[in-house]
Amino acid sequence: MNDITMRLNADELIKLALREDISSEDVSTNAVMPEAKPGEVDLIAKQDGIICGMDVYERVFKLLDDNTVVEKYVKDGDSVNKGQLMAKVRGDIRVLLSGERVALNYLQRMSGIATYTNEVSKLLSGSKTVLLDTRKTTPNMRIFEKYAVKCGGGQNHRYNLSDGVLLKDNHIGAAGSITKAIEMAKAYAPFVRKIEIETETLEQVKEAADAGADIIMLDNMDVATMKEAVRIIDGRAKTECSGNVTKENIKNIIDSGVDYVSSGALTHSAPILDISMKNLHAI
Amino acid sequence: MNDITMRLNADELIKLALREDISSEDVSTNAVMPEAKPGEVDLIAKQDGIICGMDVYERVFKLLDDNTVVEKYVKDGDSVNKGQLMAKVRGDIRVLLSGERVALNYLQRMSGIATYTNEVSKLLSGSKTVLLDTRKTTPNMRIFEKYAVKCGGGQNHRYNLSDGVLLKDNHIGAAGSITKAIEMAKAYAPFVRKIEIETETLEQVKEAADAGADIIMLDNMDVATMKEAVRIIDGRAKTECSGNVTKENIKNIIDSGVDYVSSGALTHSAPILDISMKNLHAI
Amino acid sequence: MNDITMRLNADELIKLALREDISSEDVSTNAVMPEAKPGEVDLIAKQDGIICGMDVYERVFKLLDDNTVVEKYVKDGDSVNKGQLMAKVRGDIRVLLSGERVALNYLQRMSGIATYTNEVSKLLSGSKTVLLDTRKTTPNMRIFEKYAVKCGGGQNHRYNLSDGVLLKDNHIGAAGSITKAIEMAKAYAPFVRKIEIETETLEQVKEAADAGADIIMLDNMDVATMKEAVRIIDGRAKTECSGNVTKENIKNIIDSGVDYVSSGALTHSAPILDISMKNLHAI
Amino acid sequence: MNDITMRLNADELIKLALREDISSEDVSTNAVMPEAKPGEVDLIAKQDGIICGMDVYERVFKLLDDNTVVEKYVKDGDSVNKGQLMAKVRGDIRVLLSGERVALNYLQRMSGIATYTNEVSKLLSGSKTVLLDTRKTTPNMRIFEKYAVKCGGGQNHRYNLSDGVLLKDNHIGAAGSITKAIEMAKAYAPFVRKIEIETETLEQVKEAADAGADIIMLDNMDVATMKEAVRIIDGRAKTECSGNVTKENIKNIIDSGVDYVSSGALTHSAPILDISMKNLHAI
Amino acid sequence: MNDITMRLNADELIKLALREDISSEDVSTNAVMPEAKPGEVDLIAKQDGIICGMDVYERVFKLLDDNTVVEKYVKDGDSVNKGQLMAKVRGDIRVLLSGERVALNYLQRMSGIATYTNEVSKLLSGSKTVLLDTRKTTPNMRIFEKYAVKCGGGQNHRYNLSDGVLLKDNHIGAAGSITKAIEMAKAYAPFVRKIEIETETLEQVKEAADAGADIIMLDNMDVATMKEAVRIIDGRAKTECSGNVTKENIKNIIDSGVDYVSSGALTHSAPILDISMKNLHAI
Amino acid sequence: MNDITMRLNADELIKLALREDISSEDVSTNAVMPEAKPGEVDLIAKQDGIICGMDVYERVFKLLDDNTVVEKYVKDGDSVNKGQLMAKVRGDIRVLLSGERVALNYLQRMSGIATYTNEVSKLLSGSKTVLLDTRKTTPNMRIFEKYAVKCGGGQNHRYNLSDGVLLKDNHIGAAGSITKAIEMAKAYAPFVRKIEIETETLEQVKEAADAGADIIMLDNMDVATMKEAVRIIDGRAKTECSGNVTKENIKNIIDSGVDYVSSGALTHSAPILDISMKNLHAI
Repeated sequence: MNDITMRLNADELIKLALREDISSEDVSTNAVMPEAKPGEVDLIAKQDGIICGMDVYERVFKLLDDNTVVEKYVKDGDSVNKGQLMAKVRGDIRVLLSGERVALNYLQRMSGIATYTNEVSKLLSGSKTVLLDTRKTTPNMRIFEKYAVKCGGGQNHRYNLSDGVLLKDNHIGAAGSITKAIEMAKAYAPFVRKIEIETETLEQVKEAADAGADIIMLDNMDVATMKEAVRIIDGRAKTECSGNVTKENIKNIIDSGVDYVSSGALTHSAPILDISMKNLHAI
Repeated sequence: MNDITMRLNADELIKLALREDISSEDVSTNAVMPEAKPGEVDLIAKQDGIICGMDVYERVFKLLDDNTVVEKYVKDGDSVNKGQLMAKVRGDIRVLLSGERVALNYLQRMSGIATYTNEVSKLLSGSKTVLLDTRKTTPNMRIFEKYAVKCGGGQNHRYNLSDGVLLKDNHIGAAGSITKAIEMAKAYAPFVRKIEIETETLEQVKEAADAGADIIMLDNMDVATMKEAVRIIDGRAKTECSGNVTKENIKNIIDSGVDYVSSGALTHSAPILDISMKNLHAI
Repeated sequence: MNDITMRLNADELIKLALREDISSEDVSTNAVMPEAKPGEVDLIAKQDGIICGMDVYERVFKLLDDNTVVEKYVKDGDSVNKGQLMAKVRGDIRVLLSGERVALNYLQRMSGIATYTNEVSKLLSGSKTVLLDTRKTTPNMRIFEKYAVKCGGGQNHRYNLSDGVLLKDNHIGAAGSITKAIEMAKAYAPFVRKIEIETETLEQVKEAADAGADIIMLDNMDVATMKEAVRIIDGRAKTECSGNVTKENIKNIIDSGVDYVSSGALTHSAPILDISMKNLHAI
Repeated sequence: MNDITMRLNADELIKLALREDISSEDVSTNAVMPEAKPGEVDLIAKQDGIICGMDVYERVFKLLDDNTVVEKYVKDGDSVNKGQLMAKVRGDIRVLLSGERVALNYLQRMSGIATYTNEVSKLLSGSKTVLLDTRKTTPNMRIFEKYAVKCGGGQNHRYNLSDGVLLKDNHIGAAGSITKAIEMAKAYAPFVRKIEIETETLEQVKEAADAGADIIMLDNMDVATMKEAVRIIDGRAKTECSGNVTKENIKNIIDSGVDYVSSGALTHSAPILDISMKNLHAI
Repeated sequence: MNDITMRLNADELIKLALREDISSEDVSTNAVMPEAKPGEVDLIAKQDGIICGMDVYERVFKLLDDNTVVEKYVKDGDSVNKGQLMAKVRGDIRVLLSGERVALNYLQRMSGIATYTNEVSKLLSGSKTVLLDTRKTTPNMRIFEKYAVKCGGGQNHRYNLSDGVLLKDNHIGAAGSITKAIEMAKAYAPFVRKIEIETETLEQVKEAADAGADIIMLDNMDVATMKEAVRIIDGRAKTECSGNVTKENIKNIIDSGVDYVSSGALTHSAPILDISMKNLHAI
Repeated sequence: MNDITMRLNADELIKLALREDISSEDVSTNAVMPEAKPGEVDLIAKQDGIICGMDVYERVFKLLDDNTVVEKYVKDGDSVNKGQLMAKVRGDIRVLLSGERVALNYLQRMSGIATYTNEVSKLLSGSKTVLLDTRKTTPNMRIFEKYAVKCGGGQNHRYNLSDGVLLKDNHIGAAGSITKAIEMAKAYAPFVRKIEIETETLEQVKEAADAGADIIMLDNMDVATMKEAVRIIDGRAKTECSGNVTKENIKNIIDSGVDYVSSGALTHSAPILDISMKNLHAI
């Protein structure tokens, strides 16, 4: 993760998470270790997977104590095997103990998302179809989770409601028609935004393409309909397949010729990747 | 969720999540709806499960506009069926659209945890063994996730490092022995804390019980060893089974006679429960 | 200004501004008015211009006291004449006095920007060229200043570094070439971003258009060169004229046929519009 | 700007401004520069003027990356000429690119105010009359703008409503009379505050002086009236001329013999001073 | 306490204090009271004294639940007797229980300061000497403690380092002399600040008065010396007696003829006034 | 104070306190010292007592300027004599001057509490009864004040409402009976919490012990009754004596055989310990 992003956009969240876990003090550690004492601990993968969050993991300890050193043997996006030594962390043992849980909570979740994304992404390999995430992220985890999707081989859809236009059925209803909605969005939104619109029928697809949409979302269509939609659009707009994408049906989606397929599961239902800290010892 | 907890401990996190999703404005909605317009939308379960987070869901909309009304037909802890109408939300349609994603992100994740916890918890029914969560929660989601575990039928372990003492191998190492660690913890920690200690062998179990531990964690022991541990302790301390608890092996754990079994998966790997907002219309 | 934007993105800044002006208490007002006393005051334009910030003006008083009532006779985007009564504010006189300066500081600046933007914008009327703002806004005023540009008849360029791609000479240098920079941006940026690139020569213009840029900025080119650039691009990308745009030369720019012209002066050098609160009296 | 002021009172505002411009990441820069790369850039004046904000400019980059070095050739209050090299900045090129706009937005505005203040201030040179600013500053910019006024040769009026007493017509009305208002203020305000009162007629001036005001504001009086006011006061209080002060009429004001003249335009309507960063190159 | 001050300057501190006491939830109350239930409780003085903080006390409950009603029978500055009913509080019993401690912690401390200040202040009655507080307040309690001093009959010295000038020996040393220090302060500080300077000898007193100090602090002088100092100053400046002021010696200080006497003990060593909440019952 | 606690839980409060004292700048210091200048100052005890807060004292200066060096000759918990040199502080004289008051305000209050606690604690020496603090701390000072109690020889009761269960009469009333309240608390609270319950009669004591309370508070009982209570409980629960504990009657309390005695006065009414900074000089 980029250093500036870390400082400006991640640090406050990480500190908040640390205060969530240490609201007054780490009683157990402080009870038995009144004084600082240098130590070292290993970070070890307990499952095969794709790693993501090494810089965030490091940052947790640095925010507790600048002098902590994380010697990293893997970097974000690398694949690891069960049992692999990923890093060694050196510093005051109290810092290693007090920061362990928050550091792992970030690392395991981000790696879980990268791993899951990677599995889905591989199913698309060889095709032109690109895998996208959604806004179905965990609250206050988006900066970490969208980054994890990228590390796993996916691409990011819009970051939030402010930086991308996506006109759904309710927006279309409010505007009066697809054509009118696209017109209003072009007039209102900063001109650097692409205009994406959700469609459910081929009539809507045609109207959207004619009205100059930049991206047309094909919502819950079957593969045959999507193929026809792609034919109607004929390169005038990018296409995104959305809705109930699973590992099982994703192969078929490729056949439809859509440019993008988006999946909420990447961020909302990926299990964590098991990683642990072992062999803490004084040095 | 208790109103005071919501105001003091949840509101700031919810607002942060809303700003994560709306960093300047909801461009799509504002483009097509320049003026307020009253509307109504249905909240519908798309899977069977246990609901959790109805108050948080409501709070998201209230924080955007006090006048929004959420008419709830289910409450936290209730079980719902696929297709069931859970609530109706009435208010400015722009508020319904702009708040939808954040509200659902909370509700789906909390309900996912409650549902998963409930499934595991049922496996323990009829026994005296109680299901516990851990600190393996998503950063900045603990207040929501620990509450969801309770709604699902589990109980909470300590909230964080400040409000519970758990002496692990490294703490024991630093103190010199189990006996010494317990002594130091009793001397240091506020006297309202119970002292829990992690053990890996029966010798350690015996030392811990003799030294007056309130709770003894049996870490990664097989069922036979746990049974023996329970026998050695003989009611002098509560027992907690920890490590690699799965739906498959949890039945056997009951046989060991432990008081508590803790599972990180409840919070770190439960998939969401699918819930959606449908049928938005002007009123 | 949209209510949700106000609550989520403006309120904290307004409160910060109020605390900047009242770090402990309004000593003068509290010295002479120990008790609440209802009063009314007129908001009056002291210059002709375009009004912007009426909701922010109102919000300042509401944040001090919910019971304050602002009866507005003009709305954002309206044109006012010197001496015109714009609103009446009713509430505790102490609130009217303590909030006056911050409320006017926002209103005057926002109206100043709207007025200046409107003057420049009129020079483009009848042409297809659209007036844009830039990121040259006052720190911590962007949400207010970009909105004021829109009220004055301009359109917004990207909001910030996160929501729009603009590849400048240094980015091109780092990438190796225009073609390479565009390729890297398309691969990295969320696919909802349009890719804009800065060009200084016709060779660069050609390369940018061939490489698939969505928007091509023509930086500091004379009108003849811009005309040629527009011819080369031939509708393959939108064009933006940037650099030293003045009221004097903007007419010529239209002739070049560019789609957009951006001006930093809209936000960094517009003088305020003079507005004052008069005739405060008890009611 | 004093280091302590920077840390305690400016840093949070600067970070807020950085997050305003980088809400998730600098997409353009991160797309083309995945790795850190040392570089250098020149800071160059594009207009003649008085410089203010060099430390704030430096601080923006330091907050992004401590290792950035700003080698300054001018200091706050110095006069610069068009084309003059003001500083060289060395650091990770990504930091130089991502921080550029915010750093310049502060520096240009502060230098604009210093330059404008300096021009007005020169008109008063040779006289005993001192130029003052007002509270008509840009919201959340007061710490920077009041400092800029000083760098330009002006003096600061009260910082905010809490640290100075200024009794206006409405305060006088609430108190019952000028004499009563001054009495109440002396009884209520911390005794280290000077008491200033606004007057519009010579009768009021007399009453204010008799009642022991420390400073008497002469509001919108013509020069002859101000002269008479100064005569009546006869050294018993300081005098401040306020209202519609322009470069044109300020010379006459001197003749009236007032001690201070205050101008809102210094902070609310000074155009920026054009300054830019050029010649970025790897090192 | 003024409503605006409460909202702008006290609310955030009160919320911080509430979160200090409720970091996740009020476990005891929530365990036994799952639902809201209306109740009423009495606020009763357990000692004689001067009350201060009734609005802050009320605000604590309002911040937890807007619907709480505090029916007040005394107001800030009133004297109460042991056993006196001061207020009745009505609302959800859970709110009454969860807010009790923080509300009383504020009220008892503020009333303790008001009571102590009142005792000292009475010793000065009949004289022209005014009792002042200092900056020796409890961190993050100044807005409450300085207000309490006023309620007890004292007056406030400067609020903080930013709103008053007080030149101590080290400032004088840095400037070179008393005369030089006063000159530099007059040139630098906003002109609404009075200049106070600390003196330890009669020579210094004379130099300070000659140099135009507005206030001269007589630091640790005996009464005879202070009398002589007052004679030397002869009305040219106000005088403040500082250092080791006790209830015992304060009578003598009056004889010296100083205008002000300041005491740190008012805020740093006043014991609390005992007040409690009794007779909670459902309604 | 532990470094992690300082960073996570104290730093923000210390910065808030610094901004309370320096809302814009230290006018006096900045007026006479435009440039940094190295200096040294002594920290000297002006009374005998127990020291607490040396790390917080140091941190105040570090937060203003990392380069400040505090050479400490005493550590928290040490006893000092009047006149004793406690530390030397070296750094920019402006930092020493601007930070002095806040640093001392913390150090004096924390040392005052440690000193007072130590005096009370000594009265218990030789007995098994342990001295406890309460939640009657100064708002936003709890992290500092509870630590001071420990330095003085006391032990901490629960930190706040979230980390300890204490069922008072109103909780018992809401639950229906002591037995029911304990049952509900055991079912609801995280299992690491001990359950404490307040009793006023021997019947209640018996019921509480029978119901399995972990700690029984004996509220306002006379010594004879407490003795009987201890006999009834017979080791089944810990006992805490609460209510009107004074230095005078504490000796008798020991005789009752209670395990703990709690005193609110430790934190709410301890006077400060007088400490000052002297002999500032340039180096």
